[in-house]
Amino acid sequence: MYPLTTTAISEAYNRVRQHSETICEPLETEDYVPQPVPFVSPPKWHLAHSTWFFETFILKPFHPGYQVFDNDYNYLFNSYYNNVGERTLRTDRGNVTRPTTKNVYAYRQHVDRHMSDLLETLTDPEALTLVELGLHHEQQHQELLVTDIKYILGHNPLFPVYKSGHNLVNDANEESGFAQISEGVYEIGFNGSGFCFDNELGRHKVYLHDFEISKALVTNAEYIEFMEAGGYQDFNLWLDAGWSWVNDHAINAPMYWHKIKGAWHYYTLDGLQPVNPEAILSHINLYEASAYAQWRGMRLPTEAEWEIASDQFQWGKRWEWTNSAYLPYPGFSKAPGAVGEYNGKFMINQMVLRGASVATSPEHSRKTYRNFFQAHERWQYTGIRLVK
Amino acid sequence: MYPLTTTAISEAYNRVRQHSETICEPLETEDYVPQPVPFVSPPKWHLAHSTWFFETFILKPFHPGYQVFDNDYNYLFNSYYNNVGERTLRTDRGNVTRPTTKNVYAYRQHVDRHMSDLLETLTDPEALTLVELGLHHEQQHQELLVTDIKYILGHNPLFPVYKSGHNLVNDANEESGFAQISEGVYEIGFNGSGFCFDNELGRHKVYLHDFEISKALVTNAEYIEFMEAGGYQDFNLWLDAGWSWVNDHAINAPMYWHKIKGAWHYYTLDGLQPVNPEAILSHINLYEASAYAQWRGMRLPTEAEWEIASDQFQWGKRWEWTNSAYLPYPGFSKAPGAVGEYNGKFMINQMVLRGASVATSPEHSRKTYRNFFQAHERWQYTGIRLVK
Amino acid sequence: MYPLTTTAISEAYNRVRQHSETICEPLETEDYVPQPVPFVSPPKWHLAHSTWFFETFILKPFHPGYQVFDNDYNYLFNSYYNNVGERTLRTDRGNVTRPTTKNVYAYRQHVDRHMSDLLETLTDPEALTLVELGLHHEQQHQELLVTDIKYILGHNPLFPVYKSGHNLVNDANEESGFAQISEGVYEIGFNGSGFCFDNELGRHKVYLHDFEISKALVTNAEYIEFMEAGGYQDFNLWLDAGWSWVNDHAINAPMYWHKIKGAWHYYTLDGLQPVNPEAILSHINLYEASAYAQWRGMRLPTEAEWEIASDQFQWGKRWEWTNSAYLPYPGFSKAPGAVGEYNGKFMINQMVLRGASVATSPEHSRKTYRNFFQAHERWQYTGIRLVK
Amino acid sequence: MYPLTTTAISEAYNRVRQHSETICEPLETEDYVPQPVPFVSPPKWHLAHSTWFFETFILKPFHPGYQVFDNDYNYLFNSYYNNVGERTLRTDRGNVTRPTTKNVYAYRQHVDRHMSDLLETLTDPEALTLVELGLHHEQQHQELLVTDIKYILGHNPLFPVYKSGHNLVNDANEESGFAQISEGVYEIGFNGSGFCFDNELGRHKVYLHDFEISKALVTNAEYIEFMEAGGYQDFNLWLDAGWSWVNDHAINAPMYWHKIKGAWHYYTLDGLQPVNPEAILSHINLYEASAYAQWRGMRLPTEAEWEIASDQFQWGKRWEWTNSAYLPYPGFSKAPGAVGEYNGKFMINQMVLRGASVATSPEHSRKTYRNFFQAHERWQYTGIRLVK
Repeated sequence: MYPLTTTAISEAYNRVRQHSETICEPLETEDYVPQPVPFVSPPKWHLAHSTWFFETFILKPFHPGYQVFDNDYNYLFNSYYNNVGERTLRTDRGNVTRPTTKNVYAYRQHVDRHMSDLLETLTDPEALTLVELGLHHEQQHQELLVTDIKYILGHNPLFPVYKSGHNLVNDANEESGFAQISEGVYEIGFNGSGFCFDNELGRHKVYLHDFEISKALVTNAEYIEFMEAGGYQDFNLWLDAGWSWVNDHAINAPMYWHKIKGAWHYYTLDGLQPVNPEAILSHINLYEASAYAQWRGMRLPTEAEWEIASDQFQWGKRWEWTNSAYLPYPGFSKAPGAVGEYNGKFMINQMVLRGASVATSPEHSRKTYRNFFQAHERWQYTGIRLVK
Repeated sequence: MYPLTTTAISEAYNRVRQHSETICEPLETEDYVPQPVPFVSPPKWHLAHSTWFFETFILKPFHPGYQVFDNDYNYLFNSYYNNVGERTLRTDRGNVTRPTTKNVYAYRQHVDRHMSDLLETLTDPEALTLVELGLHHEQQHQELLVTDIKYILGHNPLFPVYKSGHNLVNDANEESGFAQISEGVYEIGFNGSGFCFDNELGRHKVYLHDFEISKALVTNAEYIEFMEAGGYQDFNLWLDAGWSWVNDHAINAPMYWHKIKGAWHYYTLDGLQPVNPEAILSHINLYEASAYAQWRGMRLPTEAEWEIASDQFQWGKRWEWTNSAYLPYPGFSKAPGAVGEYNGKFMINQMVLRGASVATSPEHSRKTYRNFFQAHERWQYTGIRLVK
Repeated sequence: MYPLTTTAISEAYNRVRQHSETICEPLETEDYVPQPVPFVSPPKWHLAHSTWFFETFILKPFHPGYQVFDNDYNYLFNSYYNNVGERTLRTDRGNVTRPTTKNVYAYRQHVDRHMSDLLETLTDPEALTLVELGLHHEQQHQELLVTDIKYILGHNPLFPVYKSGHNLVNDANEESGFAQISEGVYEIGFNGSGFCFDNELGRHKVYLHDFEISKALVTNAEYIEFMEAGGYQDFNLWLDAGWSWVNDHAINAPMYWHKIKGAWHYYTLDGLQPVNPEAILSHINLYEASAYAQWRGMRLPTEAEWEIASDQFQWGKRWEWTNSAYLPYPGFSKAPGAVGEYNGKFMINQMVLRGASVATSPEHSRKTYRNFFQAHERWQYTGIRLVK
Repeated sequence: MYPLTTTAISEAYNRVRQHSETICEPLETEDYVPQPVPFVSPPKWHLAHSTWFFETFILKPFHPGYQVFDNDYNYLFNSYYNNVGERTLRTDRGNVTRPTTKNVYAYRQHVDRHMSDLLETLTDPEALTLVELGLHHEQQHQELLVTDIKYILGHNPLFPVYKSGHNLVNDANEESGFAQISEGVYEIGFNGSGFCFDNELGRHKVYLHDFEISKALVTNAEYIEFMEAGGYQDFNLWLDAGWSWVNDHAINAPMYWHKIKGAWHYYTLDGLQPVNPEAILSHINLYEASAYAQWRGMRLPTEAEWEIASDQFQWGKRWEWTNSAYLPYPGFSKAPGAVGEYNGKFMINQMVLRGASVATSPEHSRKTYRNFFQAHERWQYTGIRLVK
């Protein structure tokens, strides 16, 4: 993906790093601060943490004479790398008002300047691999930046507009019907020459049985049918944990939906809008996806089915729930040291999502990509594709 | 398994029902009452709930003129069948002192007497299938009876003896070495003629890669090596959720283990005993099993690997953790109505265990059996089998 | 109260100890076990704990050669005396099935037999004082036995009858009108020659302003007026913490009240009964008492007002909420050692109740008695007396 | 205090309003946002809420033609006035990034401009009384601004300096010895001609017994003696709820204290500093105050004792814990409507503090002032004065 030539890597570095700041451009200083729930991080933190990655894994080991910007930042902006020292508790991120947003931007400039210098001459393949990883890491945080900003603004009772005309959920399907896949042995997992994460590696054979998979994703109109048919009230449709979730939180609609004077509206990055029935459904969790599929008499694909079929339909607008748990591929082994903490240790109680979403950064999707969230989470741009 | 002849089913009914009462024989009346944690049910409740199953699904629909023992019992002893009406909240079970244990035994006799009458002439295949299901259901609760009694007595600071000579964890391995399985397409899932649960059905093909699987289970001595090597202190070995669990609960040993004057002891059904180093390890959860495997440089089997290899080693002493999530087999569909709530709705955030344990009732194990628990649970007789 | 002659103390000992067992006579063995909420203790525990008091504070120090019944009991049946060694966590009491109820009765007999022997010759005034304290301590637990039994049975969905004809809430007022007290300096606190608790000591002067106090307690009918006038929905009537309590728990009636087919019923020790409008209200907490008084345009008395006025009205059917916090009298100092833990350390965040209730043991009330509970508690037989 | 002439009230208005902004001058924009714990409010919220008071209670009812600045602000910046409509949940305040700090300052200017106009001609005594109340209300929030800013910065791992040279805890005692008060009838409660809160009204008689009260407050050095004598480890010194608090939170020092390389330091508004032994102790709660007094063989004063003795010692540097619960004075009645929610509804489970603190605004203290906090709270500048 990022051919490892000096020019290409420098260009990629600049482009990716700039994109994070572009996402934050419409924000007010105050928007950079809060962490309303533990799984949402402050935008300021995302900007600093992705910078910390380059400082810690590239500049400190590979750039002789590099002076760290501020020694405290390692403590503040490490996320979950136990190998790299003590870290701030995740739930406390929203209370750390200093360093200020301005300081964080200065931190970015400091690191970017030294990275520029370094990249002009860097040829060590291990280092270049880590730079590439750092850029993909930053792109992952860009997606979270978008969804976390939406969460922060979308839970403000004033429903502020992030950016006019920037409604990320209104796209419609362009295809219909079902693709058919025949029983047999198939291969899944990454086998290209570009970048991939460790969890995609270990291309291997799987046995699939016959299935048909929808070319279109479920739309808002289709999901409203489920809602109006009493889908949220019929326990027979739900996983047991899903039924508890529905009742404990009195759920009766996707995230960000509000019924106003009898009509469904949803919060978008363009503010509160009437729900567009043609648009592809978003912000539902695995429980809702599973109940909806059950109600239609169908099911969700496994991740292997999705990957094999994915050449036969358009994808990339929603992260699509599969009914596969996030577990290691045969032969998976985690890298030694801190980078090895990237993926493997999360392989429990998470479900795999495939595809990509409207919030995914350019050049950051491929059909073997394995995203993962817990079954109850729905603040990503998630969608439903059915199998029968 | 239970050939559906009149004689055989009656004999099986008597034998299984008697076994539940035999398990409870050493109990004092007080032991039947408490629910110390939500996942442990009072013995009294198990005895009543398994009886309620026969009254609700067999006697009421199939025995004309049957008078229910007590109308309130449906409310009290339903477990999680939303289709059969309101139910007591699971966490409240330990506070319901009436009906008394004596009443519950009277309830059992009432239902058994009418079941005896009915079974003499019952030929309706649907009813016979439900009787068979009811017996397997009761056997599942027998295993829980044993482990719940152990939990109740094992958390009493006096460590009372359940029954002298009844230590269910001290058996040793009889085999050693590794069995080898070659890459290829295999079939898993139930295909016999006897009884199985719906989650085993849908025999289907899977593709396995080469692997070797240990013929012996991990012993206490081997696990103590891990403990003494700092296994509980090294986050690199743990799944992220496991590391949180270790720290949140200050875990440093398997469940029921106590260090007394420098020596490890464990609570057994025969009271507090020194840990037997030769005996097979028990009462560890998936996090511990996974960390141990990581430390040994090996891994846990998948459930398909386990099932294919299971003819080549002895099993049945511990429920063995696999690294497979509990998910539907291809083609799984749940039965309509209450019986359909049996398995399918739990297929999220649970891991599969294979084998059987010293607490499993006779004739209640087969290699296709899919047991499942959450990754943090360890009050079952769970063990570790390694793959490399 | 208990004149300290050998005969009198022996007679008192036998009478008080017998009364605890009389209270428990209608119980089933199972009823002795559970602790449904932390503030309710298992009847078995009350019987053992009050016995432990005599063993620990009388027999061990004053009866040479006394052999403790069981060394573990000190650990199990200590309540909150930090000076007497480690204690079981209060929330775990309901899970300790052994010692059995039968063992606990044997413990009582063992201690009673040795107390009988000892009391024949006991003349040490310190010991006699402790015996007397032990009897009053047991009487306090007798009241809790009654209210805890009511809680356990009253939260069983079957509403079992404790004892036919034993409805402790149905008594009516025998007086009406208001008593008048004039402004001036008064004395409160214990000054008799019998027994009192340390928190009543330190008779001292207080200055009271004019007030009138109702001779009757609030009845169910009067409280229903408040309910029907929307008392539970009008935040202006409530203390802020009370309003949170009402909303967090969706409260709309006193404890044990259930609306069945449009009519208010309440659980009594005689089972579920229609609410008797003439009977004195019971089972309301300070928040409800305070909101009711506010609605009537009156207020609750202070404990000094209550004590001074108490000769002018009948009392003893309900513990009456005062608007006084439970704090030390001038000159209060706690006794050294374990007995000093009796009262003083609870003097924060509790409100004083005066009077006595239908559940109070005979000879266990006096006008200077200071009972105390937290503002939200209502499982005692509490009532409302108004002041204007 | 604020003589109600047009000039005086205008001058007071300008001075008080300006003071809030002066307090916030050293803040970065980010510091205005978070609510790290429910009892600490964002500085931005304090600035807006005190402004909302004037808009809601003065401008809307008394300034014909006044246009509200923004209709949503009533919803966002109401604190606990149930009579004035729906309000944001208190725990959500830290996540509301918009309106921005800049908007809030514009809101202040808008309201101040209209208040200026109005005050030029305002003569309605009810309105003038409300203006005066609004200014005292704002001064209360100024104190909270200081302590909340300290909490936010003091829980940042970087310990940022609020303002150099601005250490609000380092003042020392200027007096020593004990003042003596003789037994008798005294009068307490407000009787001046200036402003007071409703909870100070109802001057009334109390009867006090002889006591001696320290002229000096407890110092850091004295408190360190208690700590070094094992005060935090000796349960005999503590109220029961205090002992639970110490153990549940592993407390071993006052708030903001950190032991660094063997020496006690504390966070001050001037950053982290070594503890000054001569300075008056601060940031302890009632439990600590009570345990300390117990250890010294003394006690805390009641609020009546404090008020009567207060002419005989200096006060005003620390809010001083009394052992009086916050309850209504005889004859207290709350005002009708929203203003009546000011004080009365908090009269439960709070303890009275008397005096004032280094964070109190100028002209905002008097000896009859009744401040109140819950027994466990310690983020105010609280201190200990002993009585014997």
